Amino acid sequence: MSIDTARPALSPACLKPEVRDFSPYVAGMSIDEIRERYGLAQVVKMASNENPLGTSPLVQRAICEHAGLAFRYAQSGNPRLVRAIAEHLGVESARVVVGNGSDEIIDLLIRVLARPGVDNVIAFKPSFSMYGLQSRLCGVEFRATPLNADFTFPWDAFVAQADAHTALAFVTTPDNPSGFTPPAAELEALAARLPQGCLLVVDEAYMDFVADQAAHSLLGRLASFPNVAVLRTFSKLYGLAGLRLGYGVLPEWLADYMWRTRPPFSVNVLAEAAGLAALEDQVFRDETVRAVAEGRQYLAHALRNLGCEVLPSQSNFLMFRPVAALDGGVPVSARVLFERLLERGVIIRPLKSYGLEEWVRVSVGNERENALFIELTREILHG
Amino acid sequence: MSIDTARPALSPACLKPEVRDFSPYVAGMSIDEIRERYGLAQVVKMASNENPLGTSPLVQRAICEHAGLAFRYAQSGNPRLVRAIAEHLGVESARVVVGNGSDEIIDLLIRVLARPGVDNVIAFKPSFSMYGLQSRLCGVEFRATPLNADFTFPWDAFVAQADAHTALAFVTTPDNPSGFTPPAAELEALAARLPQGCLLVVDEAYMDFVADQAAHSLLGRLASFPNVAVLRTFSKLYGLAGLRLGYGVLPEWLADYMWRTRPPFSVNVLAEAAGLAALEDQVFRDETVRAVAEGRQYLAHALRNLGCEVLPSQSNFLMFRPVAALDGGVPVSARVLFERLLERGVIIRPLKSYGLEEWVRVSVGNERENALFIELTREILHG
Repeated sequence: MSIDTARPALSPACLKPEVRDFSPYVAGMSIDEIRERYGLAQVVKMASNENPLGTSPLVQRAICEHAGLAFRYAQSGNPRLVRAIAEHLGVESARVVVGNGSDEIIDLLIRVLARPGVDNVIAFKPSFSMYGLQSRLCGVEFRATPLNADFTFPWDAFVAQADAHTALAFVTTPDNPSGFTPPAAELEALAARLPQGCLLVVDEAYMDFVADQAAHSLLGRLASFPNVAVLRTFSKLYGLAGLRLGYGVLPEWLADYMWRTRPPFSVNVLAEAAGLAALEDQVFRDETVRAVAEGRQYLAHALRNLGCEVLPSQSNFLMFRPVAALDGGVPVSARVLFERLLERGVIIRPLKSYGLEEWVRVSVGNERENALFIELTREILHG
Repeated sequence: MSIDTARPALSPACLKPEVRDFSPYVAGMSIDEIRERYGLAQVVKMASNENPLGTSPLVQRAICEHAGLAFRYAQSGNPRLVRAIAEHLGVESARVVVGNGSDEIIDLLIRVLARPGVDNVIAFKPSFSMYGLQSRLCGVEFRATPLNADFTFPWDAFVAQADAHTALAFVTTPDNPSGFTPPAAELEALAARLPQGCLLVVDEAYMDFVADQAAHSLLGRLASFPNVAVLRTFSKLYGLAGLRLGYGVLPEWLADYMWRTRPPFSVNVLAEAAGLAALEDQVFRDETVRAVAEGRQYLAHALRNLGCEVLPSQSNFLMFRPVAALDGGVPVSARVLFERLLERGVIIRPLKSYGLEEWVRVSVGNERENALFIELTREILHG
């Protein structure tokens, strides 16, 4: 080892080079802090694509019933949960790997497959920040090709950025924040065009909200696509965002090595109990799907009536921008709309961090929340 | 990039080289499976150093009260929990980083500080498997120097394996599985002898059980040791093993970068609520410390009376081996003792995976569990 690689005295100079340019952490305000700052009686959060109906009553009961087991380590490998997920999806158990949120699965895929300084990971720009952040943390090059102007996927450009060192290609469908959902045939075509050593990872965090899933997901036919993996999560439809439970359906050989390298207890015991209960609660899921479909339609219609441009969405959120101020309304930027809603107790998501400064994203809430959001947006845009 | 680094067709040949020799995952039997296999009415687990009193009643109440919030993402950065931990310990908040168990903190320390293929990580052999496993997963060399024959720490040999590329030195105290706990003065001396670029990470997962902590921990004096970090956990004394909550008290600049790189939601909302409640429950902790001290003394005394060699321990477990068969008893190996106890419904920990085939480890249980374990061990060793 040559002398110039010797470690300097302990200081930020000791950090791995790729770590040094990670942005400082900025904590968002909590609901309580917003309530206090603006003197509000209540605050409505429509910013994180959480379940509009909250936590399923069956799940809450399961959590309480298992609270006394918090002192026990989980059974490593989470065999009961894996079997239940596999049965629910109709896939082989040996394909399923659960993680502390999909975040852990994304990270582990990169760590297991991509060689630092040699391989690369590709995605669209913008896309879920974890793909790029975890690649950088791994010392793996991250390449992102811009979406089309209408937020559809430019497949040719996507494939063009891949090469013999592309380990992973991440595609999110329905896409976040746009809501765009390509037909499954396009994903099939993509899988056929990627280099031989590249795994196509289709992140279907929001697929549960799509009406015709067979037309948009490859999950039911993975046996025919040996280079495709699908990610899903309990955070949205299943209402378990805070408990952290995501999973991948992977080629068997890869699932095997993911289990070999995943820390044995990363999925907590209450996430496991809650996940099992959530799989049983078909009523809650049906109610959620119905509430999201109705709420989405209501919000899209009302926002368009207020002169906003709203992207089509099959998910539990809408991306929109205030374009024209109708009926004598004043022009309002996305940033101002976000801030004025915040002052009035409704949190939506500004998209500056996605490079989309003109746009905002609103999660579908419950009926009361949706109505309040529209009423306040009308006030702000039309005085 | 030369042609021979091109990725092969998707197959196990695509795995990073350091991943390929990870052992296949073998799920341990659950308590239910053991009960069924041996036709037992009850099974007692004294294998994982869990809290002998279970989960605190205050914690259980907090979990139930927060069950309805499972659908919400945690506030990223866990600011309330970090403040509460810092206050409890009397350290600056800016030094505290919480993780999905200490496992996540260990992993992140390696990822942030150690350059793959350049730096190394040092520890003792045997030591907590995560130090070595996560180093390997990161492509970082792991060096482990054997403990002394009496399981004390050979400091000279430990320091001798460090060099200008040593990024991290892990020391566990009280040590697991031996229970050995060096005086704080020895850790001070170690900190002064390590190379300038090396962080000494003192893993104090079991320090809460030590009677005179000031004499064994540097936690209260970290300001004087800029190259020392301390890890602690809610898994043992606080009874939250299954919820996953550990933390590091680190140099501030390092804590800052750990937060920059830690996924924002890795600590789940119920772990946060439970951790806050556990910090409040001094009564439960006092009871646990008392139960562990009394149980440890009882077990050590009884095992010695049965002709076992028992290592001194300040922790919530004991390492021992059946040496002489007294009073006409038959010689029994550690393996046989483990298996016969299992058949009778008591799970202890064989130490073959630590390279200590003659030894076993028993966690201190509650009074009933301790008595049952001793009664069965007497039967097995003395017919």
